[in-house]
Amino acid sequence: MAEQIDPWSGEAPEDYSQLSEKFGIEPFEEVLDKLPDPSHQMRRNLIFGHRDFEKIAERINKGQDYAVMTGLMPSGKMHLGHKMVVDQLKWYQNHGASLYLCVADLESHITRDFSLEEAREIAFEEYLKNYQALGLDLEKCHVYFQSESESVKRLAYTLGKKVNFSELRAIYGYEGDTSASRIFYPMIDVSDILRPQLEEYEGPIPTVVPVGIDQDPHLRLSRDVANRFESEFGFVPPSSTYGRLIQGLDGEKMSSSNPDNAIFLTDPVDEVKSKIDDAVTGGRHTIEEQREKGGKPEECMIYNFYVYHLIPDDEELLEVKEACESGEMTCGECKGKAFDLLKNFLEEHKEKREEIGEIDESILSN
Amino acid sequence: MAEQIDPWSGEAPEDYSQLSEKFGIEPFEEVLDKLPDPSHQMRRNLIFGHRDFEKIAERINKGQDYAVMTGLMPSGKMHLGHKMVVDQLKWYQNHGASLYLCVADLESHITRDFSLEEAREIAFEEYLKNYQALGLDLEKCHVYFQSESESVKRLAYTLGKKVNFSELRAIYGYEGDTSASRIFYPMIDVSDILRPQLEEYEGPIPTVVPVGIDQDPHLRLSRDVANRFESEFGFVPPSSTYGRLIQGLDGEKMSSSNPDNAIFLTDPVDEVKSKIDDAVTGGRHTIEEQREKGGKPEECMIYNFYVYHLIPDDEELLEVKEACESGEMTCGECKGKAFDLLKNFLEEHKEKREEIGEIDESILSN
Repeated sequence: MAEQIDPWSGEAPEDYSQLSEKFGIEPFEEVLDKLPDPSHQMRRNLIFGHRDFEKIAERINKGQDYAVMTGLMPSGKMHLGHKMVVDQLKWYQNHGASLYLCVADLESHITRDFSLEEAREIAFEEYLKNYQALGLDLEKCHVYFQSESESVKRLAYTLGKKVNFSELRAIYGYEGDTSASRIFYPMIDVSDILRPQLEEYEGPIPTVVPVGIDQDPHLRLSRDVANRFESEFGFVPPSSTYGRLIQGLDGEKMSSSNPDNAIFLTDPVDEVKSKIDDAVTGGRHTIEEQREKGGKPEECMIYNFYVYHLIPDDEELLEVKEACESGEMTCGECKGKAFDLLKNFLEEHKEKREEIGEIDESILSN
Repeated sequence: MAEQIDPWSGEAPEDYSQLSEKFGIEPFEEVLDKLPDPSHQMRRNLIFGHRDFEKIAERINKGQDYAVMTGLMPSGKMHLGHKMVVDQLKWYQNHGASLYLCVADLESHITRDFSLEEAREIAFEEYLKNYQALGLDLEKCHVYFQSESESVKRLAYTLGKKVNFSELRAIYGYEGDTSASRIFYPMIDVSDILRPQLEEYEGPIPTVVPVGIDQDPHLRLSRDVANRFESEFGFVPPSSTYGRLIQGLDGEKMSSSNPDNAIFLTDPVDEVKSKIDDAVTGGRHTIEEQREKGGKPEECMIYNFYVYHLIPDDEELLEVKEACESGEMTCGECKGKAFDLLKNFLEEHKEKREEIGEIDESILSN
């Protein structure tokens, strides 16, 4: 597995730059100045890599059509890490994209053992409602479930005719004990990625798929498959961007299966208070030492939250950073500030969820 | 491949009894006396083997519910060999079965490279119309397309979670260059076979699948999978019967890809005349020798046609056989008789097809 990234292991990569080199992902900062009004995730290198994004940047600049495709796998609760994708989608929605949002209920069923009924409920109540409450306009997206889509019923079987077991083994590390459903699943994923380019949707069109690095195997396969079926479907190989995975409060990867290290979008405010109190920071052993030497924001999970989510304004972020490094602001004060920001966000989010009520099935398209 | 039967090779087995022994198929003649009014295919050992058919015979005798499941793969034209399955279905329809008829359009797409649109057209115009014209009441069957069915969308992915690559390799001889779609296809087939037992259809129920021996791998896998999901779905392992493959006019397996050796259901009568004239028979070199020694019906393709299709009455068949063996009937006379019978059949079939016109999509269920 030395040269493989496993999209189902849930492990965070150790070193982003090495992965970029090894897998041919380009640094995102090289395309940054080609974008109007880049988001804080783009400016701060939280989106650190891309494949073939130039053609998307060009379309954005020229006001031409392009598509953004992303998937959500309904399993457990959404945390701040999941919010990063939604923020990206909102940015694209404000920059002329046609958005395709796939509910990966088959992936949830095949790789996490949820029933399709459970996956459906989680998708509506947890994911889609949060997406809408976070400000994504779902009515303007093409939202669909894998288990109900043409892409699964038809396209996956067509594309899967030109992908063989040796290839899947090399990409995903499949063995003899890999199940038939798991073996075939990447073809569903590839179909989801190429689906916006079918004639009944956009037709062949530059498409960008914002993902975590763990999803890159699907992207590489999708680009290969797009080429193999170019003459039949006219597919443009999909572009992609790669986002860093936010760390949790204990410094490990933020994860739904580790509720103490994650801030969930529906966490009660009092629980968040104690989570913040327990966070790993870059502070010194004593207040005196902190005042004298200053803190180390690069080691601080609270600062991380500012960078990723809580302080999108760069100047404001710099002020906080300097206040920390100069020893002017203590960890206690800083945690208070972070809690206030989070509290505002969570309360507002809760209100929006209540306003939304139930997400209607009519938002689904086919 | 020594111990494997390949459902996609299109090759006829050399020796039915050996196959039965090797793969644990029971002789059909052992259950024959448990059946009321057995068909000529049953009586004449054309249906030569079965697995677990006793429970079906019992249900038939007691007038209890049971299901029959079969698939048709739309590819090319229907010949007399294909008619054998329809005759079996009619028998079951007259003996209290709930019939499930799956149009295997995904199989046609994956293994024969037809587009789903082509497969659909062939299914309606060639297969379903012929089935109806042959006397099967399609309105009383559950007819569905694989590409449109729940079984494909959902059940196949669920069942495929408990079947791994090693197992599929052992059954089907898969290698590294086997395509993802081909690897996964058996799960679709298994889902089709177990689908009648879902709660939304019959619920768990004895089901018989009449097949050619080449389809046995799917049956063995289906029985295994039924057991693995017994606690979840309550599946009864499906029963099966095995039919011989009719020989063509040249003594080889009757095949759509060999139009001279096959009688197609829509053949023009004059073409059939010349095909019959060229048939391999069990006749002698001269008429004198034939009168003296008699013919050899066991080597005769015309006699084969009588046995399989043209003379369902056993006494009448015996008379023809004796007339041949005694030298009373020459090959010329016999070919004339076969042609007359075929002509009547084909003309009547053509009339029925014209009466039917287009098969309406409303016969499809979901």
